[in-house]
Amino acid sequence: MDEFSLINTFFKSISHYRDDVIFGIGDDAACLQVPAGMQLLVSTDTLVENIHFLSSWNAYDIAYRSLMINISDIASMGAQPCWVSLALTLPAMNTQWLQNFSQGLKDGLNEYNIALIGGDTTCGPLTITLTIHGLIPTGKAIRRSGAVVGDKIYVTGQLGAAAFAVSHLLQPQQLMPAITEADTRTLLKALLHPTPRVDLSAYLQSFATAAIDISDGISADLNHICVASGVGACIDLNKIPVHSLLRSDGIENALDFALHGGDDYELCFTVNPQNEEQLLSNLANERSACYCIGIIEDTLGLRAKTVSGDVIFIEPQGYNHFKDKRV
Amino acid sequence: MDEFSLINTFFKSISHYRDDVIFGIGDDAACLQVPAGMQLLVSTDTLVENIHFLSSWNAYDIAYRSLMINISDIASMGAQPCWVSLALTLPAMNTQWLQNFSQGLKDGLNEYNIALIGGDTTCGPLTITLTIHGLIPTGKAIRRSGAVVGDKIYVTGQLGAAAFAVSHLLQPQQLMPAITEADTRTLLKALLHPTPRVDLSAYLQSFATAAIDISDGISADLNHICVASGVGACIDLNKIPVHSLLRSDGIENALDFALHGGDDYELCFTVNPQNEEQLLSNLANERSACYCIGIIEDTLGLRAKTVSGDVIFIEPQGYNHFKDKRV
Repeated sequence: MDEFSLINTFFKSISHYRDDVIFGIGDDAACLQVPAGMQLLVSTDTLVENIHFLSSWNAYDIAYRSLMINISDIASMGAQPCWVSLALTLPAMNTQWLQNFSQGLKDGLNEYNIALIGGDTTCGPLTITLTIHGLIPTGKAIRRSGAVVGDKIYVTGQLGAAAFAVSHLLQPQQLMPAITEADTRTLLKALLHPTPRVDLSAYLQSFATAAIDISDGISADLNHICVASGVGACIDLNKIPVHSLLRSDGIENALDFALHGGDDYELCFTVNPQNEEQLLSNLANERSACYCIGIIEDTLGLRAKTVSGDVIFIEPQGYNHFKDKRV
Repeated sequence: MDEFSLINTFFKSISHYRDDVIFGIGDDAACLQVPAGMQLLVSTDTLVENIHFLSSWNAYDIAYRSLMINISDIASMGAQPCWVSLALTLPAMNTQWLQNFSQGLKDGLNEYNIALIGGDTTCGPLTITLTIHGLIPTGKAIRRSGAVVGDKIYVTGQLGAAAFAVSHLLQPQQLMPAITEADTRTLLKALLHPTPRVDLSAYLQSFATAAIDISDGISADLNHICVASGVGACIDLNKIPVHSLLRSDGIENALDFALHGGDDYELCFTVNPQNEEQLLSNLANERSACYCIGIIEDTLGLRAKTVSGDVIFIEPQGYNHFKDKRV
């Protein structure tokens, strides 16, 4: 099987239909129609074997999770995803792996009404680069830079489960007796099948002054908002929505997973306090829980109110790709 | 230096200004304005170390060439490139390499009026994925599938120099005494600094029924047009525009480099014979040489008229990434 048969067999067939795709896979470029009154959003994510995923994972999960991570960047702008291109670098032609990968991608594309519009397939170390496109009404995209002093800081869901799964559940021998099999499955699902919050796009457009998705951990990602907005923040450690399974299972350092772990793909956003009540009543109708974790302040940097009521400085801890990799 | 400093130092600063970029690097997604009456074209290319380029090449050339190859996909649709995102996977933080890479990218972006809108920077085996965006008046994109029986087949420039450079000039010991240093530089430039034919976009829009860029070699790429259009082709081997240096230096197999070599990034396009005269007179004013190499026929497959006047079948020979790589 050559590159062209590979594309036809595993990718051309899975593309979800959208009538704004004038033509997709099969030409030198895809042709797309951006509707009047809409702006285009573009975001790229690369996932490298044994850094962003393990080669031992099922290819279905690798594909599905990669797509969800990429969608999350569009969700964080308050937008809807529409088209994605896939650059897949593969060490060899493994049809079973490709079948699983293709199925994971297909299920994700269908679930979020996204068309696969093209890409490139090359031979080399396993690397996945997705470039997702989203649409947003003109002027409505939510940026990192819009937070102002006094804004309340919100998180769209519970945190820490994916990071806990990374450190404790990926190898069977790491399974801790305190965690049931059902809970293990739930925690692994948080890692392998995250849910990008496109369901909240309309609320972000209406209420958020700034937003980001939580990929590196809330401390690092909130810090990105603060730096881009030229402000600081104080969060209340009692209000961090630590994942209920980590709390109920009494996991040591559960708060650390929630604060610094990453891979949650929930959103962190800021809201003018005058709009807070309306946001919360709208969300209540949707049964979507969002958690207020703190407030934007004038003083730069991140601070946290501890359980005992002290205020401490916290250091954003995100993953640094190039730590210990300098030449 | 972490990922964020890397992006700020080497990439955020080089982005060429365009007023259709609402915002670019620094948010979860870039925001872009597609003008009314235009459609969006998107194309992705991945370049893997020691497959698509050698790690011994200057990073300037690696970046510049990668961008030109990506632009070429937009040129082949008859469109103008506007925005590009870069996914760069690097084995280590080498600031000198990044400085050169960034300069090569910057020069290419400025030359073609393209904005770098974002991307991703990760640690892993050296891989470059570019996703370019172009704009085309609605309905004007030239596809592979539009060739009809009787159309003349054109090539936009001379062929074979890049492929010859790949096989003979990349290692100093391969330098053949028959080729002067100046000619060596010219031939290497064809490989390292190809010129995507966006200068011909308006002509393609007006005259081409189908088009493709010549990345795999004219035999493979013309075959893509034929397959997509459900037609065949007959080319005249006497009319293949073999690069003048290969001809003047009497290179053995010069025609093979031109037919099957690839990496030329000229365009192959088809024209209704009724429009041929007008195309040629327009091109003459522009001093752009295009070469008629054959005709689209009803019988499927590729045929070639030889020097002696015989008609032979030719097998399209493109690079197959997965040959000998099956598991």
